[in-house]
Amino acid sequence: MSIEPLDDVATRPVLRLTPGRDRRVKGGHPWAYSNEVAMTPALRALPPGAPIRLEGDDGVRHGTWLFNPHSLIAARRLSADPGVALDEAYFRARLAECIALRDRLVGAPFYRMVHAEADGLPGLVIDRYGDAVTLQANTAAMDRAMPLLVAALRALIDPRVIVARNDSAVRGLEGLPEQSGLLWGEDATARVREGGLEFSIDLLSGQKTGWFFDQRDNRARVAAMCQGASMLDAFCHTGGFGLLAAQAGATAVTLLDRSEPALALAMDTARRHGFGDRVSAQKGDAMEAMEAMVGAGKRFDVVVADPPAFAKARKDHPAAMRGYAKLARLAAMLVAPGGVLFIASCSHHVSPGEFTDAVASGIARTRRQARLLATTSAGMDHPVHPLLPESAYLKGLLLQFKE
Amino acid sequence: MSIEPLDDVATRPVLRLTPGRDRRVKGGHPWAYSNEVAMTPALRALPPGAPIRLEGDDGVRHGTWLFNPHSLIAARRLSADPGVALDEAYFRARLAECIALRDRLVGAPFYRMVHAEADGLPGLVIDRYGDAVTLQANTAAMDRAMPLLVAALRALIDPRVIVARNDSAVRGLEGLPEQSGLLWGEDATARVREGGLEFSIDLLSGQKTGWFFDQRDNRARVAAMCQGASMLDAFCHTGGFGLLAAQAGATAVTLLDRSEPALALAMDTARRHGFGDRVSAQKGDAMEAMEAMVGAGKRFDVVVADPPAFAKARKDHPAAMRGYAKLARLAAMLVAPGGVLFIASCSHHVSPGEFTDAVASGIARTRRQARLLATTSAGMDHPVHPLLPESAYLKGLLLQFKE
Repeated sequence: MSIEPLDDVATRPVLRLTPGRDRRVKGGHPWAYSNEVAMTPALRALPPGAPIRLEGDDGVRHGTWLFNPHSLIAARRLSADPGVALDEAYFRARLAECIALRDRLVGAPFYRMVHAEADGLPGLVIDRYGDAVTLQANTAAMDRAMPLLVAALRALIDPRVIVARNDSAVRGLEGLPEQSGLLWGEDATARVREGGLEFSIDLLSGQKTGWFFDQRDNRARVAAMCQGASMLDAFCHTGGFGLLAAQAGATAVTLLDRSEPALALAMDTARRHGFGDRVSAQKGDAMEAMEAMVGAGKRFDVVVADPPAFAKARKDHPAAMRGYAKLARLAAMLVAPGGVLFIASCSHHVSPGEFTDAVASGIARTRRQARLLATTSAGMDHPVHPLLPESAYLKGLLLQFKE
Repeated sequence: MSIEPLDDVATRPVLRLTPGRDRRVKGGHPWAYSNEVAMTPALRALPPGAPIRLEGDDGVRHGTWLFNPHSLIAARRLSADPGVALDEAYFRARLAECIALRDRLVGAPFYRMVHAEADGLPGLVIDRYGDAVTLQANTAAMDRAMPLLVAALRALIDPRVIVARNDSAVRGLEGLPEQSGLLWGEDATARVREGGLEFSIDLLSGQKTGWFFDQRDNRARVAAMCQGASMLDAFCHTGGFGLLAAQAGATAVTLLDRSEPALALAMDTARRHGFGDRVSAQKGDAMEAMEAMVGAGKRFDVVVADPPAFAKARKDHPAAMRGYAKLARLAAMLVAPGGVLFIASCSHHVSPGEFTDAVASGIARTRRQARLLATTSAGMDHPVHPLLPESAYLKGLLLQFKE
């Protein structure tokens, strides 16, 4: 039973770049904005996500792009070949390449398998948890390609379950509804193995796609500093940082989160691995709880503060900068002399330099002297398109405090 | 035999911040510029590098700073204590803390021991090669403190040799001459152990301080991708990247550098470790040689391009940006399908974002599609002061190329 390709190559329409507005595309950028292309009534009537051939007014062919007449980003680059067939074999080849790269980089089947433009699949995000897979289509074209992607995944790795996590707000920009559900299989629970631990997650009801692979290297980096340490994991979710710290020899780990179910999952993981007695869970607003800890004179050898995005939109930027400064100030006051702090931001709208500035100003207010040991980003299974450096959303700072 | 402290605490002069120009210092910045402090004839007559007490016009005390009346950076923060004694015990305590941190972070006695402001010792750089130490004083105060530092080093780790590498051009900004030489011991040769290899270096005649610890993590990252690979190490110096690649299983390594002595040392290291047959040296201008390789259709699974700084001064910036774009273009053309490129910049005057832009534009000109896998900086033994993020000079990009 073969699935229909995305379009008929023979009738693939041509979209032309507007003269004088073709510099970015000619420079290799993978996006063409709506004011850079020449719209026609026929093009405007195309279904969102239709493949087109992009050409310059000089006749230069830029290959096959994915078109959405209703989006600010009118077209996204897919292939240098204007006549490429977009059938199951095409997507299978793309995914196979992504899987091979991750298998080589990560070495175990727990990773971000596809990271959108950087992997040549605009707007598509796929995470792999062993025999379970989540899929997020953030463009109309990838939404249309879902049946082809499911077939390709089944052919390549035969997953037990494939879950659509199409509940991202960015789908609205493409005119897509938010909807999640099972695409294949029946049981949406899964396990992630990392650093010798096994974490239980729920791919349908969990936060985002259930687990944050992007912090894998940072969790290892922090864990390496936790032998014999007391440790606070603020905004811990299901306890990735804190439990790997316990596994690495932390003597006392405090998990802090406002989600009761997330804390329950984390404590379950701790007990299952035999260090439930070294881990305690505290439910509450992390910022308020940290403020109370500061007031009570608490100190930890290692503090992790990994909050959800403070800036979900551009307009949140000033408040987010104040929020990161405040978080850094509170976290810094909780670090014991000689101890370390890992603080992170996943706000798209706060740049790495801005985040460092906010954290530095928060720390400066404590009068404590700190060394910035490392500036980190997401792991290598989250590649970035070189011409879209702003898509590197995750920023982490590892700091060590003097007396 | 005790050495004179830097000054007499009882007569330590007071330097005042200019009203209305004290915001940065009050915000925790470790530098006060000459237009932010109130100069007096008495202060102007102080010897460069004299310790002073910095105070606001509001009477707030900012501790002990190091003063240079002839430098644009008039004072640099040393201690929150305005009355701290700057004797051998003081420097011994600071160095002991730096050593303890590095021993914990690196795990072997080969590291940057002191990284200036980030370690609370403004302008001082110390590298450790087992029982050999190099020392670079880039401020007048640290130049004056050299006898105290040598005594403290001898008390702490009893080095076989201590070498002054005071040949940095930035010393000129502090009115210091460029001079190198032995401060202790007789033999300025040393060995560095890294990744199972031992590199011979010469601490007096080598490039900079003889060895680049800042790329340690990046060398490991690249080596992890070199099993069974062909590899080009352009601007290889004594072969750090290339030889660690060979050790990790690269089948053919080409070392490329213009320095005959550096290549000879590298080949010596290769033969000593038994893989001289898998390593070859090519002497020449790296950029020209790469251009010739492109013309000859050469390809490598892994390419490293780690040149000396292209922008040594602000005015070099446009030429440096063109240089990095050209280097990226040539290097990208030499990467085999599916292969990787590591390209680095140590130019203080090119920001991380600018470097990424230059590399991305160079790669775009080749029409090849690449994934940016990682954006890296120097290792954790090169900490940064949180309010001097621009001192993170090393930038590295790891890219993987599709077909």
